[in-house]
Amino acid sequence: MASVWNKGLNISVFGESHGSAVGVVIDNVPSGIEINYRQIENFMSRRAPLNSRIGSTERRETDSFNIISGIFEDKTTGTPICAIIKNRDYRSHDYNEIEFLARPGHADFTGSVRYKFCNDFRGGGHFSGRLTAPITFAGAICQQILHTKGIKSFAHISSIGNINDKKFDLNNTTIKELEKMQSKSISVLDDMIIPKIQDKICDVIKQGDSIGGTIECVVLGTPAGIGSPIFDGVENYISYLAFGIPGVKGIEFGAGFKTSLMTGSENNDEFYVEDGVIKTKTNNHGGILGGISSGMPIVFNLAIKPTPTISKKQKTVNLKTLENTKILSKGRHDACIVVRAVPVVESIANIAILSQLIYQGSF
Amino acid sequence: MASVWNKGLNISVFGESHGSAVGVVIDNVPSGIEINYRQIENFMSRRAPLNSRIGSTERRETDSFNIISGIFEDKTTGTPICAIIKNRDYRSHDYNEIEFLARPGHADFTGSVRYKFCNDFRGGGHFSGRLTAPITFAGAICQQILHTKGIKSFAHISSIGNINDKKFDLNNTTIKELEKMQSKSISVLDDMIIPKIQDKICDVIKQGDSIGGTIECVVLGTPAGIGSPIFDGVENYISYLAFGIPGVKGIEFGAGFKTSLMTGSENNDEFYVEDGVIKTKTNNHGGILGGISSGMPIVFNLAIKPTPTISKKQKTVNLKTLENTKILSKGRHDACIVVRAVPVVESIANIAILSQLIYQGSF
Amino acid sequence: MASVWNKGLNISVFGESHGSAVGVVIDNVPSGIEINYRQIENFMSRRAPLNSRIGSTERRETDSFNIISGIFEDKTTGTPICAIIKNRDYRSHDYNEIEFLARPGHADFTGSVRYKFCNDFRGGGHFSGRLTAPITFAGAICQQILHTKGIKSFAHISSIGNINDKKFDLNNTTIKELEKMQSKSISVLDDMIIPKIQDKICDVIKQGDSIGGTIECVVLGTPAGIGSPIFDGVENYISYLAFGIPGVKGIEFGAGFKTSLMTGSENNDEFYVEDGVIKTKTNNHGGILGGISSGMPIVFNLAIKPTPTISKKQKTVNLKTLENTKILSKGRHDACIVVRAVPVVESIANIAILSQLIYQGSF
Amino acid sequence: MASVWNKGLNISVFGESHGSAVGVVIDNVPSGIEINYRQIENFMSRRAPLNSRIGSTERRETDSFNIISGIFEDKTTGTPICAIIKNRDYRSHDYNEIEFLARPGHADFTGSVRYKFCNDFRGGGHFSGRLTAPITFAGAICQQILHTKGIKSFAHISSIGNINDKKFDLNNTTIKELEKMQSKSISVLDDMIIPKIQDKICDVIKQGDSIGGTIECVVLGTPAGIGSPIFDGVENYISYLAFGIPGVKGIEFGAGFKTSLMTGSENNDEFYVEDGVIKTKTNNHGGILGGISSGMPIVFNLAIKPTPTISKKQKTVNLKTLENTKILSKGRHDACIVVRAVPVVESIANIAILSQLIYQGSF
Repeated sequence: MASVWNKGLNISVFGESHGSAVGVVIDNVPSGIEINYRQIENFMSRRAPLNSRIGSTERRETDSFNIISGIFEDKTTGTPICAIIKNRDYRSHDYNEIEFLARPGHADFTGSVRYKFCNDFRGGGHFSGRLTAPITFAGAICQQILHTKGIKSFAHISSIGNINDKKFDLNNTTIKELEKMQSKSISVLDDMIIPKIQDKICDVIKQGDSIGGTIECVVLGTPAGIGSPIFDGVENYISYLAFGIPGVKGIEFGAGFKTSLMTGSENNDEFYVEDGVIKTKTNNHGGILGGISSGMPIVFNLAIKPTPTISKKQKTVNLKTLENTKILSKGRHDACIVVRAVPVVESIANIAILSQLIYQGSF
Repeated sequence: MASVWNKGLNISVFGESHGSAVGVVIDNVPSGIEINYRQIENFMSRRAPLNSRIGSTERRETDSFNIISGIFEDKTTGTPICAIIKNRDYRSHDYNEIEFLARPGHADFTGSVRYKFCNDFRGGGHFSGRLTAPITFAGAICQQILHTKGIKSFAHISSIGNINDKKFDLNNTTIKELEKMQSKSISVLDDMIIPKIQDKICDVIKQGDSIGGTIECVVLGTPAGIGSPIFDGVENYISYLAFGIPGVKGIEFGAGFKTSLMTGSENNDEFYVEDGVIKTKTNNHGGILGGISSGMPIVFNLAIKPTPTISKKQKTVNLKTLENTKILSKGRHDACIVVRAVPVVESIANIAILSQLIYQGSF
Repeated sequence: MASVWNKGLNISVFGESHGSAVGVVIDNVPSGIEINYRQIENFMSRRAPLNSRIGSTERRETDSFNIISGIFEDKTTGTPICAIIKNRDYRSHDYNEIEFLARPGHADFTGSVRYKFCNDFRGGGHFSGRLTAPITFAGAICQQILHTKGIKSFAHISSIGNINDKKFDLNNTTIKELEKMQSKSISVLDDMIIPKIQDKICDVIKQGDSIGGTIECVVLGTPAGIGSPIFDGVENYISYLAFGIPGVKGIEFGAGFKTSLMTGSENNDEFYVEDGVIKTKTNNHGGILGGISSGMPIVFNLAIKPTPTISKKQKTVNLKTLENTKILSKGRHDACIVVRAVPVVESIANIAILSQLIYQGSF
Repeated sequence: MASVWNKGLNISVFGESHGSAVGVVIDNVPSGIEINYRQIENFMSRRAPLNSRIGSTERRETDSFNIISGIFEDKTTGTPICAIIKNRDYRSHDYNEIEFLARPGHADFTGSVRYKFCNDFRGGGHFSGRLTAPITFAGAICQQILHTKGIKSFAHISSIGNINDKKFDLNNTTIKELEKMQSKSISVLDDMIIPKIQDKICDVIKQGDSIGGTIECVVLGTPAGIGSPIFDGVENYISYLAFGIPGVKGIEFGAGFKTSLMTGSENNDEFYVEDGVIKTKTNNHGGILGGISSGMPIVFNLAIKPTPTISKKQKTVNLKTLENTKILSKGRHDACIVVRAVPVVESIANIAILSQLIYQGSF
C-alpha cells in the first residue's frame, strides 16, 4: 500500500506529476463537521509557489481542488471524502532519452528497480513533490476537524542553510505570533531573517544549486492521554507520516538529538500542578511521554534535504544502458522546497493527531 | 493496537515489568527457515545487563525465552511464533504511595491519564524498558531469516554524552569490524573510547544521575528496489518502529540533519556503474531514495535520552492528590540504557527490512 | 474505514449516488501488467442496466470511467490506480420531506443514526447500489491481472425466486460454457430459463414489487496453497468482500448449508493423484480446506435479497418526527438486482484471490 | 497474518495442537473493565468435551488458562492481554508414516503446500480445532466488556443432521430461555430434541462416522448505528471471523438464503415507533441494514460441516510419495463438533461487536 495511511483514518493518495490529476480519499472522518472551503484554499495556497516568494518553480500551480464526495451541505457526511486536484499545465509525451538518466538524489533509479521501468517517470511521477498537494488537502480537512476540539498546529522554517529562525519557546512564543506566521509568505517567527533567506535562495539559484533546511512544528491543545505505548504512540504516527514528505531525512521530538548530550537531571521535565492541571516548566519531552501526549505542546523538528534537481552538471548513469554519463537538468524546479513544505508539515501533524483521536474514540 | 506492528509481519508484544512474563507473537513469518536457538540467546544476551559492563541495573535478567509455537524440528512452521520470557525476580505487591508520584521524564503521568489509573504501574508496567526483551526476540528471529538473503544489520554506540565513536564509513569500515563489534561488551567501532565510556557512566552513577547517547545502525545487503513511495517506504517503517523503543527522541537517515546545511550539489550522491551494478560513491542518502532501497548500506542514527529514573531529588506531583511534591527514586536502574539498546536497534532494523521483503513478496 | 479493503490490496471506494461521481483507488497492484480498456468496458457493461434486460432501472448509466492515475502506456505503473465514474444524470437538490421516511429494508434509518443525519441521503448516498460500479472497476483490473496467472472467475444467476439455473458441475460444466455465459444479457448456464426469468421479473414489476435470488461463482485456476488458516483464509476474504455488496444476506462455500445434513463419509472429498497432481473427485469443500486453496475450483453461492425499494405502500416512520406513517416509493429502481450483480460477484472474487496472491508474494 | 484479527481489536492467536500450549494476545481492550475469572472458566467450559455429552473426544481438555498480562487487580489495564492455555496431555514425537496420508476434508494437504511441509502437522497443528480454545478465551473477555453495555450474545444448536431446534423468535423467545440455554450441556432451545441429538451422535459414532449441523446466534442489546457501509459493516466482521472457526461452510443473516425466494414486500421489515424507539415487527434483516445495526436483535446462522476425521476407510494420497492409497484414522476425535462450537460462535459474535464499538469510539 505505497500511498495509504491507515490508522484511525484511511488516507489514500494517488496521481502522478504529469498525469491528469492528483488526489486523495480520506475515509473514517467523523460526520457533521462543517468544512469551510475558503479555509482549505488558504491552507493549500501556502504550499503553492508564489512569485512573491523567491526560489520557487515558475510553474504556476493554483491547486484548485474538486471535492467529489463526502461533503454534503458543507458538512462531512462521515463517508469517504475524495478530492481531485488537476495538473493544469502538465507536459504531454515529450520526454526522451534524458529520462533514463538517473537524477542524483532522486528516486529515478530506485523507482525504476521497484516498478521494473513501468512507473510513470515523467517529472518524478508518483514520487514527485506534487503529491504533497493531496496530502495538504487532507491536512486542511483534518485541521478543521481538530479546530472543533481546540487543537492547532503551527509549523515554521526553523533554518535554511545556516540561517536560523527563533525556536518555539514554551514561555515566550504567543499563539498570536504563531497564527501571524501562517499568513506570511515565508513562515518564520523572526521577520528579520526573511531578507536573509531571500538572499540565500537567490544565491543558490544563481549557482544553479539548491539548499536544505529544517522545519519546526508545534501542536497546541492536544489533551493529555492521547496515544499508546510501544507501537502506537504519537511519535510513531508523526514520524511515519513525516517520512512521507519527499526530502525529509530526519525528525526529532522535543530536545531531540540534544538529549543525547544531557544527563537525566538536565533532561527530565519536572512536573507541577497549576489550577488542577499537571504541567512541566520545560518541554524537553516535546509533549510526549511513553508515546502519549502530556498536554504540553507537541514539538518536533524535521530535516529537509536540498532539492536534488539542480542545474549543475552531475555524474550519473543511464538506467537503460548502464553506462556512466553526465546529467544537466533543465527546466523549472524549486531551489528550496523548505518554504513550500511548511503547510505539508502541519498537515502530517494534523493527520497524526486526528488519527490518534479517532482511534481512541474521541469522535 | 498499542503494541502491535502489522505491516508485512504482525508482531504483537505483551507483558508488564512486574507481571509474570513478557512475550511476543510473530505472525506471517515464512516457513522452513532454520532457527538456531543459541544464536537467539547470543543476540538477546547483548541486551541483558552484565557485570562486566558499567552502568547497568544490578537486577539480573538472563532473559531465557520459551518458544511456545511456530517452530517445529528447528524450522519455522509459517504459523505464528510465540515466545514467553519470564520475569524471574519480579517484585510482589510491595508498591505504595510513592507509586503515585510521577517520575519526571517517565510515562507514569501520561499512562495514568490514558488508562484511567488502571494500568499496571509497578516498575513502569507495559511502558517499561523490559518490553524491549520481546522486541529483541522478534529481532533475533528476523535476523536469522534475513541472513538467508545475505542481509545483516549492525548497530553501535555512536556517542554517549560527548564521547563519540567513529561513524560508519562507506569506504573504510569493514564487515569484519562490524561483526567484531557485536561481540564486544560495549559495542563501539573504536575500542579506545571504551574506558572513556566506562568512566563517564561511573561518574553519572556516582552523581545519582544518568546520561543519553546516540546509536548508529547500518544494514548491509538489502537489494535495490525494496520499499515504496510516500507512506510505505523504508524510512517510514524504521522510524515507526524506532519510536517503539523507550527513550528514542530522534532519528535521521544518511546525512540526516546535516543535509539541512548542504546545497544540492554537496548532498546529492552521484551514481556510477561498477560491474553492472549502480552505486553511489557517497552515501548521504543513507541507502534510501524515494522510500526505496538503493542497494547502498541503509544507515540511520538514533537519539536516546538519558534514563529518566535517577537518584536525585526532583520536583513532581502526586497523581492522585494533585499536590506538588518531590520524588527520590531508589532501587536499581540503568544509568545509561544506550549500552543495552544496541541489539534492540538492530532488532527494529531487522523487523523493518523483513517486513518490507515479505510485503513485496520476496519470501 | 467504511469503504476500504486493505489486505494485500488497498481498495478505497468513494462517492454518493447523487454526487458528481463515484470512484475507487486501488493501491499495491503489481507493475507492468497490460490493461485493456475495452475489456474493462465490457466487464463493467455487464453491470449496467440494459433495455434488452427486463427489470432494470430506466435510468441509463453507461458507466464510462476515467482513469486518473496508475496506468501509463497501457500498463500498470505499480503506484495507485484511481478511476472516476461520473454520475451523468444525477438529480440536483430536489429532495424533500419524503427523504425522511425510512424505506423499509434500506439503510435510510441506520445510516441516519450512524452519521447523525449528516450523510448524503439522496438516492441512498454512499449506501446506494451505485457504489458497485467502482467495485466492478476494481474487479475488472484484478481480473486482467489474474488472467496473467491463468485464474478466471465466472458467476451466474443460480436462482431468481423459485426459478433455478443449473449448478456448476465439476465434471460436466465446461470452460466454454462458463465463458459464453459472461456474454449473455442474463448470465445463466441453462438458456431455457431466460424467458422464465424475464416473465418473473415482468410480473413483479407489474405488481410494483421486487424479487431476490442467488448467484453462484466459480474461480478456476487458483493453484493449491493460496490462503492461510484461521483469520486469513480464502473464505474469510471472499465473505468479507461479499457482504460489501448491498443486498447480500448469505454466503456458502462448496456444499455449504447442505454439509450440515451430511455425515463425514458423505461430505469428505476423497483425494487422488492424476498426472502428479492431487485432486478430489467431488468438491463439497468448494476448493478450500483450512482456509487454503486446494487447486480444485473455488465455488461459492450468495443469497441476494429482493430490492427493498418497491412501488407498494409500506408502513414506516418519519426519521425526523418519529411518527408512524406510510411510504410509497416512486421513480426508477431495479426490480431484481440479481441480474446486474453478476459481474460484481466476480469482482469480489477477483479482488479476494488477487489479494491473497499479492499477500503471499506471488507477484 | 494467518491468525490475526485487527479491526478495532487486535487478536493474535497462536499455538499448535501438539505443541506445549495454545494462546492469544488481545490488544486495544478498554481499560478498567472488571474481569471475573470464574465467568471466563464457565464460558470456556462450554467448549470443553464432557463425558455427559455424547460424541466428544475422550481426550480431556480442562482448558485452564493462565493470564500473563493485561489484567491487574482484576481489571483490564488497557494494555495487551495474553493468555496461555496448556496442552496438558499432548503426544510426543510418536507420529509416523500415516502423517503423510492426507485426511480427506482436512487441511493436511493444503497446509503442506502452503507451508512446504514445514508446518507442525501433528494433530492438525495450527489448523486444529484446538485453536478455538484461545478464540473462546478472547470471546469470554469480550463478553464481559460487552455486558457493561448491556450487549449479550446467545448461540444454540439450530440443527444436527435433520434434527431441528426451534429458531429464535423475535416475539416469543425470552431472554430467560436464552440464558438458560447457556448452562445446558447441549445448547438448544427445545429440550425435547436433546435425546434425539444424543441418539443421533451415538449412531454416527457406532458407524465410525460424524455429522454436521447449524448454529444460530442472536446478539441482543446492540444499539442502532453500529457498523459502516460497504467494507466495514457488522456482516463483514461477523462473517470474516466466523470462517475462522474450522468447519464453517456457510453463514446467513436474518432470513438469509430464504430472502432469495421472497418478494420485496414479503422481505422488507416495516418500521414503527414504540416509546420513541424505531423498531421492526419482523426481523428478516437480522438486525443489520447497510452494514449498520438497527437496534433489532442481530441474528445469524452458520453451517458446520461434519468432522472430517472419521474411523471409516477412505481413499486418499500420500503427500510425500504422491501415491494413491487409503487411510483409516484412529484415535480420539469429535463425532459432532457442533455441540462444542456453540460458545465459539458466541465468541466471534462478541469479538465482532466489540470491535465495531471500539472502532466507532464507544469505549
